[in-house]
Amino acid sequence: MDPPAYRDASLPIAERVADLLGRMTIGEKVAQMTCLWNERHTKLLGPDGRFDPDVAGRHFGRGDGLGQIGRPSDAAGGAKPGLVPAESATESNVIQRWFIEHSRLGIPVMFHDEALHGHVAVGATSFPQPIGLGATFDPDLVERLYQMTAAESRCRGIHQALGPVVDVARDPRWGRVEETFGEDPHLVSELGVAAVRGLQAGLGEGRGVVATLKHFAAHSQPESGNNCGPVSVSERHLRETFLTPFERAIRLADARSVMASYNEVDGVPSHASKWLLGAVLRGEWGFRGFVVSDYYAIRELAERPELYGHHVAEDGLHAAVLAVQAGVNVELPEADCYRELPAALEAGLVKESELDALVAPLLAMKFELGLFENPYVDESAPPTIVGAAAHRELALEAARKTVTLLENDGILPLRIESLRTIAVIGPNADRPLLGGYSGRPAAVSTVLQAIRERVGGSAEVLHHEGCKITVGGSWWEDEVVPSDPEQDRRSIAEAVRVAQLADVVLLVVGGNEQTSREAWMSNHLGDRTSLELFGSQNDLVNALAETGKPIVSVLSNGRPLAVANLASKSAALLEVWYLGQEGGRAVAEAIFGDYSPGGKLPVTIPRSVGHLPAYYNYRPSARRGYLFDDVTPLYPFGYGLSYARFEFSAPRLSSERIGVDQAVTVSVDLTNVSDRHGDEVVQVYVRDLVSSVTRPVKELKAFQRVTLGPGETRSVSLELTRESFAFWNIDTQFVVEPGDFEVMVGPSSADLQTVRLTIE
Amino acid sequence: MDPPAYRDASLPIAERVADLLGRMTIGEKVAQMTCLWNERHTKLLGPDGRFDPDVAGRHFGRGDGLGQIGRPSDAAGGAKPGLVPAESATESNVIQRWFIEHSRLGIPVMFHDEALHGHVAVGATSFPQPIGLGATFDPDLVERLYQMTAAESRCRGIHQALGPVVDVARDPRWGRVEETFGEDPHLVSELGVAAVRGLQAGLGEGRGVVATLKHFAAHSQPESGNNCGPVSVSERHLRETFLTPFERAIRLADARSVMASYNEVDGVPSHASKWLLGAVLRGEWGFRGFVVSDYYAIRELAERPELYGHHVAEDGLHAAVLAVQAGVNVELPEADCYRELPAALEAGLVKESELDALVAPLLAMKFELGLFENPYVDESAPPTIVGAAAHRELALEAARKTVTLLENDGILPLRIESLRTIAVIGPNADRPLLGGYSGRPAAVSTVLQAIRERVGGSAEVLHHEGCKITVGGSWWEDEVVPSDPEQDRRSIAEAVRVAQLADVVLLVVGGNEQTSREAWMSNHLGDRTSLELFGSQNDLVNALAETGKPIVSVLSNGRPLAVANLASKSAALLEVWYLGQEGGRAVAEAIFGDYSPGGKLPVTIPRSVGHLPAYYNYRPSARRGYLFDDVTPLYPFGYGLSYARFEFSAPRLSSERIGVDQAVTVSVDLTNVSDRHGDEVVQVYVRDLVSSVTRPVKELKAFQRVTLGPGETRSVSLELTRESFAFWNIDTQFVVEPGDFEVMVGPSSADLQTVRLTIE
Repeated sequence: MDPPAYRDASLPIAERVADLLGRMTIGEKVAQMTCLWNERHTKLLGPDGRFDPDVAGRHFGRGDGLGQIGRPSDAAGGAKPGLVPAESATESNVIQRWFIEHSRLGIPVMFHDEALHGHVAVGATSFPQPIGLGATFDPDLVERLYQMTAAESRCRGIHQALGPVVDVARDPRWGRVEETFGEDPHLVSELGVAAVRGLQAGLGEGRGVVATLKHFAAHSQPESGNNCGPVSVSERHLRETFLTPFERAIRLADARSVMASYNEVDGVPSHASKWLLGAVLRGEWGFRGFVVSDYYAIRELAERPELYGHHVAEDGLHAAVLAVQAGVNVELPEADCYRELPAALEAGLVKESELDALVAPLLAMKFELGLFENPYVDESAPPTIVGAAAHRELALEAARKTVTLLENDGILPLRIESLRTIAVIGPNADRPLLGGYSGRPAAVSTVLQAIRERVGGSAEVLHHEGCKITVGGSWWEDEVVPSDPEQDRRSIAEAVRVAQLADVVLLVVGGNEQTSREAWMSNHLGDRTSLELFGSQNDLVNALAETGKPIVSVLSNGRPLAVANLASKSAALLEVWYLGQEGGRAVAEAIFGDYSPGGKLPVTIPRSVGHLPAYYNYRPSARRGYLFDDVTPLYPFGYGLSYARFEFSAPRLSSERIGVDQAVTVSVDLTNVSDRHGDEVVQVYVRDLVSSVTRPVKELKAFQRVTLGPGETRSVSLELTRESFAFWNIDTQFVVEPGDFEVMVGPSSADLQTVRLTIE
Repeated sequence: MDPPAYRDASLPIAERVADLLGRMTIGEKVAQMTCLWNERHTKLLGPDGRFDPDVAGRHFGRGDGLGQIGRPSDAAGGAKPGLVPAESATESNVIQRWFIEHSRLGIPVMFHDEALHGHVAVGATSFPQPIGLGATFDPDLVERLYQMTAAESRCRGIHQALGPVVDVARDPRWGRVEETFGEDPHLVSELGVAAVRGLQAGLGEGRGVVATLKHFAAHSQPESGNNCGPVSVSERHLRETFLTPFERAIRLADARSVMASYNEVDGVPSHASKWLLGAVLRGEWGFRGFVVSDYYAIRELAERPELYGHHVAEDGLHAAVLAVQAGVNVELPEADCYRELPAALEAGLVKESELDALVAPLLAMKFELGLFENPYVDESAPPTIVGAAAHRELALEAARKTVTLLENDGILPLRIESLRTIAVIGPNADRPLLGGYSGRPAAVSTVLQAIRERVGGSAEVLHHEGCKITVGGSWWEDEVVPSDPEQDRRSIAEAVRVAQLADVVLLVVGGNEQTSREAWMSNHLGDRTSLELFGSQNDLVNALAETGKPIVSVLSNGRPLAVANLASKSAALLEVWYLGQEGGRAVAEAIFGDYSPGGKLPVTIPRSVGHLPAYYNYRPSARRGYLFDDVTPLYPFGYGLSYARFEFSAPRLSSERIGVDQAVTVSVDLTNVSDRHGDEVVQVYVRDLVSSVTRPVKELKAFQRVTLGPGETRSVSLELTRESFAFWNIDTQFVVEPGDFEVMVGPSSADLQTVRLTIE
């Protein structure tokens, strides 16, 4: 007998899918729509945490197969050590082989894993947290590092990365702001497109992984700042702010997967939204990939203990029906509700054709990945790829480009030769700061370690913790113990004595992986009601300031913090977010001027939690002002200083009048008028002066990061296209309305030169 | 020649309108669509502020007439003294006569004025601010007091009141929260309907005034809490929260006028929204009255100095065209943009038929008011009506019913005979506290005055201001001078010495008409970034607490304040909002137990500004929790104590199963188990357990305030109708979905007993 058509790699994928689908039972189809994660410990693995064919046989012996296995490296979960690179490749091969050999049709399994900023696995390279990547304003860098992440993942048997996060951050109270590229739809889109291109490069050749855009949609403006909270947002705002990055990552980078979001929009949970997953995603955008559920989110359509759920379904079976009808292809992370699909089919609540439509893209993906032909990975490869020197080098480059200078009275860069004693103080000074969803890189440098290394013997480096932020520190620990104020008080007194011995204080404060993180349920929270430095940190700042010693402050944290007090008491202030494994070195190099910081804020830093929302691209009627407070931000979007100094020429347009479908080039001459190398980000904003619906006072539409040597001038030209001027008009059509526009160019959203453009 | 048909009072109004409209020129039509307010000082009045026929003749001599005159009493504007009741009646007659006699068709003018909580005029009775009326949970009271307000206004020549405000408050930072009946759509609807009925009673008989529902729509959730800020809200949320009170006040009480709101919704400013003013208001709801613009809001469709504007029109002419096309009948307060309508007509931008459609309801209203037959008021009436004894009595009743007891360790009511010395302390202790949009009542009692009066000679009453909130205090003053911390420090020290002489401290703190008010422009602000007691008030609280003297605290303010510290240091705490002219007396009576406070919070009091939004009727996925903070409110919606104690029986339903169009009665036996008279508010909430879109965890659907004597039991029965269970479903239809519901009954939103109802 000839091999079945679906095994013929020379046939078009659509034909192979049709052939395979035609052979599958209901049970086999449903199996493709399900996943295994925590339950693998009882259904797949033995007591030693390794694959056990007897266990697997008891649960999967029927031969229906399995769609996905989740987070095999298991490094995200915390307590368990996880597998080292070679082990995980071997393990994935063993599991893959078993499923291929023990399922009737031999359909390979897909492995997915977290890869927010590096593969979340033991030994993997850890890059800056996405909010820090946002600060780089460097899509090329982002593409390269996600390509490395894909390589590090795929070589261990991973086929799908649960990322990038292309949510547009709109509430700093929310603990997941750090997972985003910031608050601007264009910046998030550009970096999101880059991340998808990086992840998916070489998808069919065993190098890339499927990118998963998340969280679809509007996850990032939860009510009251509470994770997974409802989103009440008008359709126009939804489209222009939250949907844009998803649309562009699909249209421009062909992202193959989308994760639906836990939250509801306008009363409709995303996992049950025919409009979002159907009309918009597949209809308007022509998405042909597959939608995965967020973990346990289908169950939440009904009710979930401790989380209440949305109550739009009475039980798991009806929740499964809603998710199928909306278009969720795979339930993650376990076969929880979808295991009820055969019963739903029997009850006539779903049709087999509906399942077929959802299973087909899953099979197509497995064909496209080449899994039928090459299901196994080279077990000798991981040690040469995971954590490779080139990856560490890129992690360092990314960290350097993330560092953002907010204040500098001239103290920076420190001249090492003029210092005898440096006091490195603060709860974040000697702590790896990787952020949530981090793997376990082979090595991580803290600021203190790197300063000691950089200074060598030429100065004395003193250290004191100053105070604690929280007693623990791991983002997966449920219980968070705040610092003890009385212990902090004593610790601050000691830190002051250390500071008094030094020429300069390097103060490293901010947040940690416990004060900003994804809230799961009521015993694992991460959203805050305040943006102040947590705990005793402001007391530490004030006490150190009273010593009169110059303070160079470094903020490492996951969300914008209201640091007016810190800023006023610091001679210099660096915002570094989470820099990844090479963070300490990048900070030390910045402090001593080995390079000039050139990061820009990817998110507005507000003066207080009472100023929210504070995003820069607001409508003209917003931000009228507050009584007894300043309505402006503490630091505006796009802001960041340099040790170099740059001058912008007046911007020029290639044409002052264009048609509605035409592009225009805006050019500016950028000159480094200092004697130092440095980076500047040329930012181009647009404003439609009169329009059928209100338009923001400015919107970022193009940017380019440029490195210039002393005295160097470069002409930077950026193109504005139809999309730069179009918006969702009164009839919810994406159009350009003829009329006058302002094109604004400068080094931040608050420092711009304007030129007028007419569109006819 | 026979008099024209429009003068024949025996004809139906529609015929009179058609006849009159047929006779009018473009100029006359446009004149009806315009108003005169501040400009009357140059166009109507002489240097003495009284009508001057020569001035009027120069500006209105063409005989086109005039639609409206705004705020003739001019007491809202501040510095000017305003006219006493008899004067204003005379003045309105003189002006009315001149326009009737000096316009070609003799169309009378309509006078409008502010009447937020009493007519905003000299001598008028001042009732509690609407947020305080919300606390009464007493629609009958509200109807009676707005009827009195109408009588006090109409007798002075006023035909239209710019109220009630039926905005649903959703952001306490916003300075206009005090103008609302609170945060709940049902409560706001019930009180809004009552207010409209009160205002419009006797409209055609010279007693009532046209009610103006404002601000249409969603004005009360401005972005960042900044007045007039954009509103991004989903359509379902918009309908169920913000539109409900407007719809009900129109359907149930036939409100004749609606004021469009300054803000945009989904990018569309209300004054240009064909959907809001057309499809919804006139189409769905069948509104046949007229829409007025908010002051200068049509100009804001283009650009307005200092306020930027919405930029959906390039100039005033185009703004006028947008407003006409959307359906704004009258431009307030001046003929600013609408004066360009003849030019717009000439340019073909609007059609005369469009103007006719907008002018007709204006003429109809003047006919309905009887102005063609009885244009003048009885000049002898005002002194007998304005500020009449019965009105003062109702103002006192309303104030008593507003007072809300939040904490009481048993200290209240104070027993006057056991006290030798009372210290009345605090910046609000000896200050009239009327709130924004207040008139100038003939007499106002402060808390201090009323305590002194109530105590008589039986105890010594000491007083100290403690600290200031602001140096000025009038809501119309642009510049607000915060209290001086150093002066406050000295003042607090003095207040402590006064407190030490007393048996009990009565501490009166909160806000004032400057810290919470309508923000006009950047030099006149009223929105805050913090909900803490302003200035040094918490220092005052803390210093007084250290004396160990028992503190009875009274909060008077316009917005919910985060008063955890005050509450923890007070033996008792009363929230009184702004009580109106009889406020001092109502507080004194409450303190000494002449009645038992029975007000309930019409709005959630959050723990901090970082908890917003904090409204109680949230979706099940909201309020997951905060790290390091409690997600629950400081005081929940509907909460309020009493000196009496009440017990609720288990609730009973008239039927446990009903059809989708049926009503059900929920009954409960309420028993006063104390030895004091007291009020309780029976509150009924509903939850739909499984539905096609998410539904709130609870929603107020019925309530009744009940007064019971000691030991008394009353059975309270409240009806739940189709509307109580219906919601905007997945297809945006207002339907009841069969299934199980919870019906919850109790004394606050956080203290409820549940019974199950099935709808088939």
